[in-house]
Amino acid sequence: MQNLVVISLFLFTGFVSSFSAAYDFSEEQKRNVKLLMNASLHDDTGYRIVESLTTEVGPRLAGSEAEKRARDWAVRQFESLKFENVRVDTFSVPRWERGIETAEVTSPFPQKLSVTALGGSVATPADGVEGELHIFPNLGALKSMKNNAMAGKIVFVDESMARTQDGSGYAVAVAKRGQAAFEAHRVGAVAALIRSVGTSSHRFPHTGQMKSITDKNPGASVPAAALSAPDADQLARISHMSEHVRIKLILTPEVLPASTSGNVIAEIPGSKKDEEIVLIGAHLDSWDLGTGAVDDGAGVGIVMAAAHLINTTLQQRPRRTVRVVLFGAEEVGLVGAKSYTDTYQDQLDLHIVAAESDFGAGVIWRLGSANVAEEKHDVFTAVTEMLSPLKIIPGDNTSSGGPDMKYLKEAGVPIADLRQDGRDYFDLHHTADDTFDKVDPVKLRQNIAAYAAFVYLVADMEERFR
Amino acid sequence: MQNLVVISLFLFTGFVSSFSAAYDFSEEQKRNVKLLMNASLHDDTGYRIVESLTTEVGPRLAGSEAEKRARDWAVRQFESLKFENVRVDTFSVPRWERGIETAEVTSPFPQKLSVTALGGSVATPADGVEGELHIFPNLGALKSMKNNAMAGKIVFVDESMARTQDGSGYAVAVAKRGQAAFEAHRVGAVAALIRSVGTSSHRFPHTGQMKSITDKNPGASVPAAALSAPDADQLARISHMSEHVRIKLILTPEVLPASTSGNVIAEIPGSKKDEEIVLIGAHLDSWDLGTGAVDDGAGVGIVMAAAHLINTTLQQRPRRTVRVVLFGAEEVGLVGAKSYTDTYQDQLDLHIVAAESDFGAGVIWRLGSANVAEEKHDVFTAVTEMLSPLKIIPGDNTSSGGPDMKYLKEAGVPIADLRQDGRDYFDLHHTADDTFDKVDPVKLRQNIAAYAAFVYLVADMEERFR
Repeated sequence: MQNLVVISLFLFTGFVSSFSAAYDFSEEQKRNVKLLMNASLHDDTGYRIVESLTTEVGPRLAGSEAEKRARDWAVRQFESLKFENVRVDTFSVPRWERGIETAEVTSPFPQKLSVTALGGSVATPADGVEGELHIFPNLGALKSMKNNAMAGKIVFVDESMARTQDGSGYAVAVAKRGQAAFEAHRVGAVAALIRSVGTSSHRFPHTGQMKSITDKNPGASVPAAALSAPDADQLARISHMSEHVRIKLILTPEVLPASTSGNVIAEIPGSKKDEEIVLIGAHLDSWDLGTGAVDDGAGVGIVMAAAHLINTTLQQRPRRTVRVVLFGAEEVGLVGAKSYTDTYQDQLDLHIVAAESDFGAGVIWRLGSANVAEEKHDVFTAVTEMLSPLKIIPGDNTSSGGPDMKYLKEAGVPIADLRQDGRDYFDLHHTADDTFDKVDPVKLRQNIAAYAAFVYLVADMEERFR
Repeated sequence: MQNLVVISLFLFTGFVSSFSAAYDFSEEQKRNVKLLMNASLHDDTGYRIVESLTTEVGPRLAGSEAEKRARDWAVRQFESLKFENVRVDTFSVPRWERGIETAEVTSPFPQKLSVTALGGSVATPADGVEGELHIFPNLGALKSMKNNAMAGKIVFVDESMARTQDGSGYAVAVAKRGQAAFEAHRVGAVAALIRSVGTSSHRFPHTGQMKSITDKNPGASVPAAALSAPDADQLARISHMSEHVRIKLILTPEVLPASTSGNVIAEIPGSKKDEEIVLIGAHLDSWDLGTGAVDDGAGVGIVMAAAHLINTTLQQRPRRTVRVVLFGAEEVGLVGAKSYTDTYQDQLDLHIVAAESDFGAGVIWRLGSANVAEEKHDVFTAVTEMLSPLKIIPGDNTSSGGPDMKYLKEAGVPIADLRQDGRDYFDLHHTADDTFDKVDPVKLRQNIAAYAAFVYLVADMEERFR
């Protein structure tokens, strides 16, 4: 990364981009992009935001007292950074809280296993459940079983996840997290274990939500937990050595009365068309095991710092309003994202572009989109070309965007996807090891440079993308 | 490491060593060294031993039922590998067992911390202790405090450990593990925290013994726990932001009635001087958090496989007896090592050389010694030169040897120190992450090659080293 920075600094002193035919950015716009990129490389606002959130608040599960403290923190941060229209849009969220979680092999080779309950899991009895283990190589194998074929057993879906740059391995692997506990119930099992949805080789189980906590008819399920990769390996070895393996599992999570969550919103009003909105977001809640640094403290730092840079570096604010949204209750089912889209239904046509940073702080290498009209592709590509000094290439128009973009995307809002290099992201994702020290400040600056330049351009140019 | 193997295989087909002037090894001895090195690179006995111990027994704390199962396992392994004189020398050991262990910041920023009790720690009350945090940069700073200067506080020794090839960083850093709880008591604190003695950047606290469990007058101490590195960083940051930080700690370890431990011993009797002994050892017990793979399943695999190779690869057994000792209760205070030296007091003069592998399975890069008589240094160096195809260089005669060599060394037995590259060892040492997947089978084979060649030579040559 040091090389990237040195090269980038060199390039920024030259000409940013001259090969765009589809759109003529003004000399001022080109100069401002250069200013923003250079400023981002000499600014640690973003890094200090991530440090502050992960240290002063730490873990902040949806609906918890800690998530409330995170909202208070965010309001203070926005105000001290001179954002305008700072507000909290609250909504109700069901609340799930982790309890005791232990697992052990009781025979043939007694030993403890490292597990964590999946979010939304039902509890075992206080003294646990015990059953014979049955291993399935993947979710499909479990789904192919007849009803009650695994009566009384503990099923274990030992499906691995591929390490990929764009995170596509996750989309494949996460299916078992959502479905194993329900399938296990269908086949008569007393509990479900999965190999963690993650790529870490360390002994960290990865938690994560089964089905959205707001789903009123999730179906019947059994207690479900994820094993760390070394523990999954161990169970596979033990099963290879012995036909009959017995497991005991204790999980005591609780569903508590519905609580309050909220989205924290702040703006830099546009200088000419302040009713038109460029939205950049991240989510404020985190899982409870780590301190939510790469997921999604980094995103919070990136979007707050990028907007702050735009507000403080340039002589004039961009034409359109830059709106920063820190979504609540993302992890448990995109509850804040739904609330936002409902609340701002009347403004959605005025959302020019929306983007969420929720994939850590690896280097951004690609800018994709969704909902960009065919005849506007070239204009969007012209924006991407302005980011080429940061080593960012154009993506296609089928991007997912961040998770909290789901409902905006469904509503037709053009989505930008500034895609981080996620090869290491799932080593930390949803584990106790997701802590501040894992955020690389140099890579974070590249992210902030990319967001600042991108947001400035789409907020300042006259084009729309629909 | 792949390169090493390719190069080594190539070298083994040539001439092993010809530049030794101090000792003329016979052509047969040279041929046998070559045979052993080649065989070790095509043999996975050692790797399978580590796999079997860490899977079928798993964690095996001194004095526990699991350590008993490890002894039974070892006897079965030795017998199936056709060792002779297989026996268990039992001894009594006090027993300490981990309980609940939680820590949290209660103010100003409430959040949980990842901790583990130090071995031998006393318990807190069941509902814990709470106190204001006081951070010391190192043990010396705590030791410089006057009696009762920290009354009612929780002291935290935030001393880091250097990553070194030879493990010398550990000797410096481990002092705080032994003394912090006693010093904390002296200054009136209610509990002691230390930054883990280790080099991992992951969220694993490292346990480890405070003082030998057999120490009858250890002195008064307070409950003591280690924080993972990210948690130590977090506490340091919080303290930097806020003058008054309060911590709550719950530790409920118990001291149980004395239990049985034991050393498991097996031999390959010498073909000519079977009363003379070359001892190679490792320790069978492990800490309870991981499955004891690098500490010290690897050592068990290395010494068993090396002796087995000698017994099965060569046409004739070496002149002297090769004795493999798997020590019990090492981690809690070298209890098995003391028992061995007491039990075999009358044979110590017949111990030609002793060596323990208890530093993981990184590549062996140096062969040092202790107690080698001045006039025998050249002979010892000549042995080392025979290991040069494995890229091993000579060390000096001030080696520590493995921990279980302590009493043999004190008794004057010549000690060999086949020193592994330990740069990664303390990432795993005494953590939950010390699991089988961390053992590199290619590096393990180099270790076995080195042990096999070394043991064969010193068991077959006529020289002694005193």
